[in-house]
Amino acid sequence: MFAEILTIGDELTRGEIVDTNSSWLAAQLWDRDVTVRWMTSCRDDVGDLTRALRDAAGRADVVLCSGGLGPTEDDLTVDVVASLVGVAPVVHEPSRVKMESLFASRGGAQGAALAVIQLRQVRVPAGATVYGNSAGLAPGFEVQVAGVPVMCFPGVPREVHAIFADHVVPRLAAFRDANAPRIARRVYRAFGRGESQLSQVCRGLVDGVEGASIHYQVKFPEVLIKLVVRDADAEAAAARLAALDGGLRGRLGPTLYGTGDDALPDVTIAELRAAGLKVATAESCTGGMIGQLLTAVPGASSVYVGGAICYADAEKTRQLGVRPETIAEHGAVSEACVREMALGARARFGVDRAVAVSGIAGPDGGAPGKPVGLVWLACAREDGEVVTKELKWPGARDMVRLLAAWWAIALLRGPHV
Amino acid sequence: MFAEILTIGDELTRGEIVDTNSSWLAAQLWDRDVTVRWMTSCRDDVGDLTRALRDAAGRADVVLCSGGLGPTEDDLTVDVVASLVGVAPVVHEPSRVKMESLFASRGGAQGAALAVIQLRQVRVPAGATVYGNSAGLAPGFEVQVAGVPVMCFPGVPREVHAIFADHVVPRLAAFRDANAPRIARRVYRAFGRGESQLSQVCRGLVDGVEGASIHYQVKFPEVLIKLVVRDADAEAAAARLAALDGGLRGRLGPTLYGTGDDALPDVTIAELRAAGLKVATAESCTGGMIGQLLTAVPGASSVYVGGAICYADAEKTRQLGVRPETIAEHGAVSEACVREMALGARARFGVDRAVAVSGIAGPDGGAPGKPVGLVWLACAREDGEVVTKELKWPGARDMVRLLAAWWAIALLRGPHV
Repeated sequence: MFAEILTIGDELTRGEIVDTNSSWLAAQLWDRDVTVRWMTSCRDDVGDLTRALRDAAGRADVVLCSGGLGPTEDDLTVDVVASLVGVAPVVHEPSRVKMESLFASRGGAQGAALAVIQLRQVRVPAGATVYGNSAGLAPGFEVQVAGVPVMCFPGVPREVHAIFADHVVPRLAAFRDANAPRIARRVYRAFGRGESQLSQVCRGLVDGVEGASIHYQVKFPEVLIKLVVRDADAEAAAARLAALDGGLRGRLGPTLYGTGDDALPDVTIAELRAAGLKVATAESCTGGMIGQLLTAVPGASSVYVGGAICYADAEKTRQLGVRPETIAEHGAVSEACVREMALGARARFGVDRAVAVSGIAGPDGGAPGKPVGLVWLACAREDGEVVTKELKWPGARDMVRLLAAWWAIALLRGPHV
Repeated sequence: MFAEILTIGDELTRGEIVDTNSSWLAAQLWDRDVTVRWMTSCRDDVGDLTRALRDAAGRADVVLCSGGLGPTEDDLTVDVVASLVGVAPVVHEPSRVKMESLFASRGGAQGAALAVIQLRQVRVPAGATVYGNSAGLAPGFEVQVAGVPVMCFPGVPREVHAIFADHVVPRLAAFRDANAPRIARRVYRAFGRGESQLSQVCRGLVDGVEGASIHYQVKFPEVLIKLVVRDADAEAAAARLAALDGGLRGRLGPTLYGTGDDALPDVTIAELRAAGLKVATAESCTGGMIGQLLTAVPGASSVYVGGAICYADAEKTRQLGVRPETIAEHGAVSEACVREMALGARARFGVDRAVAVSGIAGPDGGAPGKPVGLVWLACAREDGEVVTKELKWPGARDMVRLLAAWWAIALLRGPHV
């Protein structure tokens, strides 16, 4: 089954925004065994949009189309699709009522004035299957163009995600031929080993398991492992997937931190909260990135107390009590220094666990024996133990920093990665 | 003049990576008065790639094509383009020599073994104009397909950028008809006012100036102002642009922080370094983001000493000396609190300027009189003055934090935004 994704808007073809809807939709489709063959972006232009829709319907089994459903004269999707199908655009009453009540709640006169213009965005081609938009005002819809289903969404990513989950997922399931294989799948998220090491670790896992396959995707600095089982019977597929789950978890060990849409900072905050642990950070080369990643999680304040950014060496001494002799003897990028940073942070912040990072992110600052990309980490734990870790990753400054920040969070989570 | 952008690779159509090359190229072309009409992505497939190239050459004046120039069997661009043009792929000797010397420098045996496979990526269609790749191994090239120039680049963004600057920019200039208008343009970057306020401020600036126009682009949290002058004569266009420059700068005032590719953290670090000033940060709701943005700039250590992340209120007292009575009386998100945070950070870090932030990033934590999105900032300066700023921006958590971090950096730069 082949799909084509079409995204519409001058802001795309002028390069003003990066099109993230196409890749998001493509990943969703790929996970459901639908192969995206073409992704096209075009301007807000009747002729171009008509051609793009005709071409797409002529070469794909399903077309997913995002953008051009707003209230302005630039938003042409409803009109062009209606014209291709040979119907008129009509107002979708439930969406109009929803919009009117929203505007009324914002205050009368302005609401009424807006509604005249805004009516454009609650139109659909007559006879279309309407996809209610739980995240916004403009409804999505589906029509048949030359016998091919064309599904249209607004351009706002969160509205695309909502309509996809609410309407497209069940539609895609319905498209499947009764005899087509059912697919059970799960995404495992691993951090701390490279793709080749992980594929080595998982070698043979699915051998002899009918319809099972395993796939790897690098998403720096983590790796996604996708386990897939196909079977004519959905329950049989799910059962074989479930039977593989324990083995895969065992092989991945502590590198596995989550499944599905889990994110390392969120998982870490949740686990630390459940364990009743408080944490702090001591950052040199990451310059605040660890704290920023942890506090991006809503509710992080129940776990994260604060941090010391010690970019200058003297600050490592003032804020964390690192002995000047340690820095003089071993350098600021050393196991001895991060050990004292972590112990100092744990004591001064009065927390259960504190993590410390010091490294050379580059592009300058390397020295003989201390190359760019060298990073030392330490985690001082509630039992008094200090776990240390050395990284040597000869990459760009932003990647060295990101990798170091992820390792710091992994060490806060548990020492044994 | 119409362009089509074509990006190639299964990793795109599977949604494994977001295509940033298309929007980058589109923005570059738009700035040079070339309108991108279509952007297409397709799989690593001979048939699809052939069709995409034929369609593109059939409807555009120039085609820019990224991806599929690597060493693996999946990399098909050279072969498909050569076949379309009716020539054979040939090894580009200068690129081969460059690759061999690189591999030799990495060590003999492995180098020699690699070279056999890697030769694929230094091939071009026979007779093509070769674009040397100053940022990587695989050369770009240009051929004519049905009379239309087709320019091919590798898929790695920094290689696309290098080849575009080195080869495509002069080529695009050469394409211009002798009678076509020359364009002088400059991008001004502003932070601290919204698009509508800035367009108000700039109203009338270009009135009566022949061929001049002004455009706005929101790139949260900043706004780009693009000044464009068209004239048959390039020097006349440049002269009229230069004559408008002072007026625009005057109107934008301190909201203008840079031009072209400037970035606020880089500009700020450079200005503070030139002024011989040292700075520190005191962060609550941004959780380290200000430090992270400043230390993303290589060489930030000559200006940035460090920071205190005081996520818990007690840490505002311990690390910065904020009086508990201040927090009890005014709350942690208050002018009084950030003032004490900034003064405490300036004194304890021993710096010239210190900036402090405390706010409610949401989604929870709002209270009557203190809604989600309320942020207080203070900057304690070398003259003893403390500048404060209140933000009320009812957006998502990540946007509130980003806006607050930018304002903090703007305050470190100068107080009068």
